[in-house]
Amino acid sequence: MFGLMQDRPLLISSIIEHAARHHGDSEIVSRTLEGPVHRYGYRDAHRRARQLANALTALGVQQGDRVATLAWNGYRHFELYFAVSGMGAVLHTINPRLFPEQIRWIAEHAQDRVLCFDACFLPLIEQLAPLLTSVQHFVVLADAVPESSKIKGLVAYEILLAAADSGFDWPQLDERTAASLCYTSGTTGNPKGVLYSHRSTLLHAYGIALPDTLNVSARDSVLPVVPMFHANAWGLAYAAPMVGAKLVLPGKDLDGASLHTLIEAEGVTVSAGVPTVWLGLLTHVARNGLSFSHMRRTVIGGAACPPAMLREFRDRHQCEVLHAWGMTETSPLGTGCTLKFKHLGLDQDTIEAVRLKQGRVPFGVDIKIVDDDGNELPWDGVRYGHLMVRGLWVIQRYFGADQDAVDADGWFATGDVATIDADGYLRITDRSKDVIKSGGEWISSVDLENLAMAYPQVREAACIGWPHPKWDERPLLVVVARDGELDKAGLLAFLAGQVAKWWVPDDVVVLDELPHTATGKLQKTRLRELLAGYRLPGT
Amino acid sequence: MFGLMQDRPLLISSIIEHAARHHGDSEIVSRTLEGPVHRYGYRDAHRRARQLANALTALGVQQGDRVATLAWNGYRHFELYFAVSGMGAVLHTINPRLFPEQIRWIAEHAQDRVLCFDACFLPLIEQLAPLLTSVQHFVVLADAVPESSKIKGLVAYEILLAAADSGFDWPQLDERTAASLCYTSGTTGNPKGVLYSHRSTLLHAYGIALPDTLNVSARDSVLPVVPMFHANAWGLAYAAPMVGAKLVLPGKDLDGASLHTLIEAEGVTVSAGVPTVWLGLLTHVARNGLSFSHMRRTVIGGAACPPAMLREFRDRHQCEVLHAWGMTETSPLGTGCTLKFKHLGLDQDTIEAVRLKQGRVPFGVDIKIVDDDGNELPWDGVRYGHLMVRGLWVIQRYFGADQDAVDADGWFATGDVATIDADGYLRITDRSKDVIKSGGEWISSVDLENLAMAYPQVREAACIGWPHPKWDERPLLVVVARDGELDKAGLLAFLAGQVAKWWVPDDVVVLDELPHTATGKLQKTRLRELLAGYRLPGT
Repeated sequence: MFGLMQDRPLLISSIIEHAARHHGDSEIVSRTLEGPVHRYGYRDAHRRARQLANALTALGVQQGDRVATLAWNGYRHFELYFAVSGMGAVLHTINPRLFPEQIRWIAEHAQDRVLCFDACFLPLIEQLAPLLTSVQHFVVLADAVPESSKIKGLVAYEILLAAADSGFDWPQLDERTAASLCYTSGTTGNPKGVLYSHRSTLLHAYGIALPDTLNVSARDSVLPVVPMFHANAWGLAYAAPMVGAKLVLPGKDLDGASLHTLIEAEGVTVSAGVPTVWLGLLTHVARNGLSFSHMRRTVIGGAACPPAMLREFRDRHQCEVLHAWGMTETSPLGTGCTLKFKHLGLDQDTIEAVRLKQGRVPFGVDIKIVDDDGNELPWDGVRYGHLMVRGLWVIQRYFGADQDAVDADGWFATGDVATIDADGYLRITDRSKDVIKSGGEWISSVDLENLAMAYPQVREAACIGWPHPKWDERPLLVVVARDGELDKAGLLAFLAGQVAKWWVPDDVVVLDELPHTATGKLQKTRLRELLAGYRLPGT
Repeated sequence: MFGLMQDRPLLISSIIEHAARHHGDSEIVSRTLEGPVHRYGYRDAHRRARQLANALTALGVQQGDRVATLAWNGYRHFELYFAVSGMGAVLHTINPRLFPEQIRWIAEHAQDRVLCFDACFLPLIEQLAPLLTSVQHFVVLADAVPESSKIKGLVAYEILLAAADSGFDWPQLDERTAASLCYTSGTTGNPKGVLYSHRSTLLHAYGIALPDTLNVSARDSVLPVVPMFHANAWGLAYAAPMVGAKLVLPGKDLDGASLHTLIEAEGVTVSAGVPTVWLGLLTHVARNGLSFSHMRRTVIGGAACPPAMLREFRDRHQCEVLHAWGMTETSPLGTGCTLKFKHLGLDQDTIEAVRLKQGRVPFGVDIKIVDDDGNELPWDGVRYGHLMVRGLWVIQRYFGADQDAVDADGWFATGDVATIDADGYLRITDRSKDVIKSGGEWISSVDLENLAMAYPQVREAACIGWPHPKWDERPLLVVVARDGELDKAGLLAFLAGQVAKWWVPDDVVVLDELPHTATGKLQKTRLRELLAGYRLPGT
């Protein structure tokens, strides 16, 4: 027997309709590439999204077609989000920081039909255009086509919109319809596409707006520093209009000074980004004796939040750090770190220890940790294992793949290693491929790297498992010295004071620099190649 | 093209599984009928719900069968919520305050197969049992069957559970499966059943937990004073375990002293109920010079919150009143009154005026107001019309009905009359059948009643439209005098100072008492019958 409630599909078009109708004058504020700030309300954004849907229809875009973007966070990008998915096509957000060859590979794999890009990427697109076999239309997100342009048939976004009617009835799609596509920037192999549905996107937006995750309301002014090409700005591009929050889009300048000016001018209450961005912001703020008038929360994900950063936000700025974990394959929110009733009234140190974990799942996501044989491990906050995730907004299969990315029970292997404590709080300790297996025990490369980087002479550190005849692997520490000087024995003694004896690396190798990917991730596979032929002492 | 995310059903069993796994020791605290407080965690509740599912299976309960409850808010009622819906049967919560004949009618209409009831309802059930033709099993929610019982085959809940295994795999149902059934206690005609689905229940739980509605988190201790037989305690019976909040269930004693003791003992942070209950609580608190240590929010629905109540909570207790509107047909949350970014920093009077409205819709619900011909009216906060609602957790059709309860576009006529302002805030001004239509203009009976009740000599007031040869209808005020004395001219002059001249009632009739339904609602149809033959002055 079925219930007798309304069976309406969960559609992305409903979000912008809701925002336009119930929060029509709530603002979207964008810093444009040209410099000035652009501001309008959700009602205007909805009107322009409908014009855009008509314009794309006129270009021949049909349901299921991929429309790609190469753009910073701004209002036109926001309009593309709702027009493309709303009309039943697939929004494909491409990371412009990738190498041109990777961008070409991704656009070809996705078979993008239209490519929309910020004017600053014109040189890049000119270089790529002849190689993009599926793209039929190039659209520059600007008032007019730059005179210098060499791209045949390039059209300007505003010219397209000006010619389009604002009447457009959003189709009542099946909620499982594909809505957007985002490729992971893996450290190995080709990128893989994650194809979100309308349903997964809406459930994720509900999930991240909850008080226990990002806690987004109509009283917030939300600044996603995280780009709209990184898993839909962590879902904030949907959650903000869903709840009618003011949305502040920072454009391309993410330096401390630019961000602080925007945060203060727009009364930003909550922001979201990776630790690197906040480091730049905090440095600028400290150097210039500045403060935050309204910003009381900041979401930190993408990498672990250093304790010093959490303390600086908390003690100097009364700003709560919301530590989060996720990945493109999880839409991206997997966990967020907020407290429970049982924590209220505990001392600051205990609370800080909780807050430095990556947090717990909202309803809709489940996690577990397993050993190498797939056996579930206990939640004691100590034992660590491979992190598995499943849920309403977790991947089933990569775009174009011929088999599922999950096991028979729906568990997706994240490639992370983690502990989970009795209250369900996750702590990421390593990547599965980087964890060091010594004599059957696991050693966290991340923990050793973090400790090593606290040693004054160390600028950057990587810890990798190196072959050992007796122990299978032993930790090898590879560092870049801060001023060319490094006292290896002193560094090892420093570590020995803080970890179990068998965790202390067998050796330290000093390099001038460490290899990184285009997005700044440490490339340990490349590092292993660079060290080919090295042998641990005594082996 | 479909997305490639996991397509998992939205099931009520997932809520209790999530709560048990991620908030296993978060407490459910119940004041029992026997007196003592019972406490355990979500992990225990899940184990007992699985035992109950096995026990009900052993009784022959199958998917789609209705299992009825007549019970106050308590842990066994909570277990029934998850066991019955979780196993694919339908939880039918009956309001024990209805007249016995109404209860019989409802149970027969629903064709309930099992009836579970609190021991305090034994006399009622003994009276009804012979008349309930579909009920095969009667279960008393107690350790043992009372010796005095005259019901054949009556079994005790705890005996059933003790015999049942705790291993039970929740079936992976279609999310549109019926989960629970609740009858409206209409003021006219037979009650009508609203049949919620797993999907509508889960989406509603996400919706009410949002910061802009009831704002429920794992840091809350939630006290639903609103009964679990009133639209699932306004959804809190699902939202609390969904977010891992502590849940405090007050049993049958809802007087001020009982509630205050429980609120303080259990660190309640947020409560929910109707104005009458809060009046009792505030009176007790004021008389005894008490306060609230942790309660910072209270949700008021079911009837409009009097301004004085909002002020007393705010000024004496630093407790925010969350005004809400909804009905059984809307699961029930339609709107909740929280502020927007634009309101921050405004003066207290302006904010109070907003807070006294019933609020705005969360994403998932839409509203409009229409005139008698169905034309949508503007959102100016002044014009009022029939309130229509539609959305993800709004009714499509009543249980057993052969046609939809909504129009072709999904709009459900609420029977309320309301204004909506430019920011989407709803203000209920009347019931559609009670609004007074005088010379083509509408007059709010509720507004006139509220004003009249502020007149010192008036204890209760009802305002109805009475036939008039020229104006079609004119307002007639019917009052109960506080001490037998009433100065009619003084009352009319008092009103004339506060409303437009044509709103002033044509006459005042004094009665000893006004007719009410079993649930305490004013019965204006009965009032009209009592006044049969009355004519307005000059007609």
